[in-house]
Amino acid sequence: MSFLSPLPGTMLYGLSRIIRGGAALCRHTAPARVQCERRYSVAHRPRDYALPNPTWNPDTKRLYEELNRDRSWRRLPSYEEFARSRPSISPEADRKTRLFTRNLDQDGIGFEYCMFYNEAEKRTVCIFQPGPYLGGLTGHTHGGCIATIIDATVGTGIVHSIGPAMTANLNIDYQNPIPLGSTVIIDSQVEKVDGRKVYTSCQVRSHDDAVLHNKATALYITLKSGESEAQL
Amino acid sequence: MSFLSPLPGTMLYGLSRIIRGGAALCRHTAPARVQCERRYSVAHRPRDYALPNPTWNPDTKRLYEELNRDRSWRRLPSYEEFARSRPSISPEADRKTRLFTRNLDQDGIGFEYCMFYNEAEKRTVCIFQPGPYLGGLTGHTHGGCIATIIDATVGTGIVHSIGPAMTANLNIDYQNPIPLGSTVIIDSQVEKVDGRKVYTSCQVRSHDDAVLHNKATALYITLKSGESEAQL
Repeated sequence: MSFLSPLPGTMLYGLSRIIRGGAALCRHTAPARVQCERRYSVAHRPRDYALPNPTWNPDTKRLYEELNRDRSWRRLPSYEEFARSRPSISPEADRKTRLFTRNLDQDGIGFEYCMFYNEAEKRTVCIFQPGPYLGGLTGHTHGGCIATIIDATVGTGIVHSIGPAMTANLNIDYQNPIPLGSTVIIDSQVEKVDGRKVYTSCQVRSHDDAVLHNKATALYITLKSGESEAQL
Repeated sequence: MSFLSPLPGTMLYGLSRIIRGGAALCRHTAPARVQCERRYSVAHRPRDYALPNPTWNPDTKRLYEELNRDRSWRRLPSYEEFARSRPSISPEADRKTRLFTRNLDQDGIGFEYCMFYNEAEKRTVCIFQPGPYLGGLTGHTHGGCIATIIDATVGTGIVHSIGPAMTANLNIDYQNPIPLGSTVIIDSQVEKVDGRKVYTSCQVRSHDDAVLHNKATALYITLKSGESEAQL
């Protein structure tokens, strides 16, 4: 068992504090796996959805610009077709499948988000603006949509910090509903690693740090070298 | 505190057993709230998505027909625009918003599902066929998509058995990935009610009962009369 975070169980909130913490500690470079993904993407030039578009509201844009300026946080690109980099899937299958969080054709109506990764802290932050097509029965953002962006943020962070992994448990507290069209920050951190088990914690807060929407823990299991997720 | 299930913590699996259990116990009629929803829907005649369409695979169709034949299970209609029955939302907002699970225009690519409710057992079953636009990074159904259909099933069951409620906690174990295009059954049950707290349990199994994909518990808080979800 090893603790990857210098202060397991503690998380700092407010973007200025998130950035300050990262700047003081960052001394890692991107792992080889991530560099491969980038080469692939450049060669095929699919659209990177983790860049600003006109549907982003001022809070989403401001948070993006603040994190993008800080060198301790690396922006993670995001594509709609998760199968592009999987050679085992045919071109026919490629055309038919889409990543759940990038499956709508029109900007601004679904998941608008971008993620930033801090290598030193094994920490991933997602700026998220839920569009009007993500509604729940109560008129706010659907609870499953919040689970989705938490799973996406935590899972992406683990892929970048440790390697491919599968979700084993998600435990989410819903404390305050998230209005459609608002901007929230998902702040996820690896807390400890025990063999193939990766324990993480996560919070979802409003763009101005004033409202705690969700607290969550998540357990992931890393894949062995050459193992497919179907063998788990 | 009252126990609504005769055997809290126990659930039967396999559709034949689900149906048998329901047929022996059903002796309730639909509550007034549900009848109001039906009148509204008939007046506006929106499309009911919980009816078979040509993209349903043979397993989905078979399970639908078996539950539809059994009088102890009542089919629950499903619409894309959750705001239709909320008089506080303007027609303009109505046009812009959609229910998260019904937000794709093309049949078969997203959430294909229908729910059935058993009043006697306070039990809700969802037949679910995840389409190719619900993919996760590993190529199977996205973990957030599974959380979404669990939240939708459990939440719908509580609305029909007790009344409007908000998700307070979702705790989901992911045991086996769900292939895109397959058919699974989400089986959800109210376990106990303690004041405004409603405790539920849920399992997700393959159409043939052979594979346990997910186990979950969920806690919901019912809304007080006249209370909006924003006041929780």
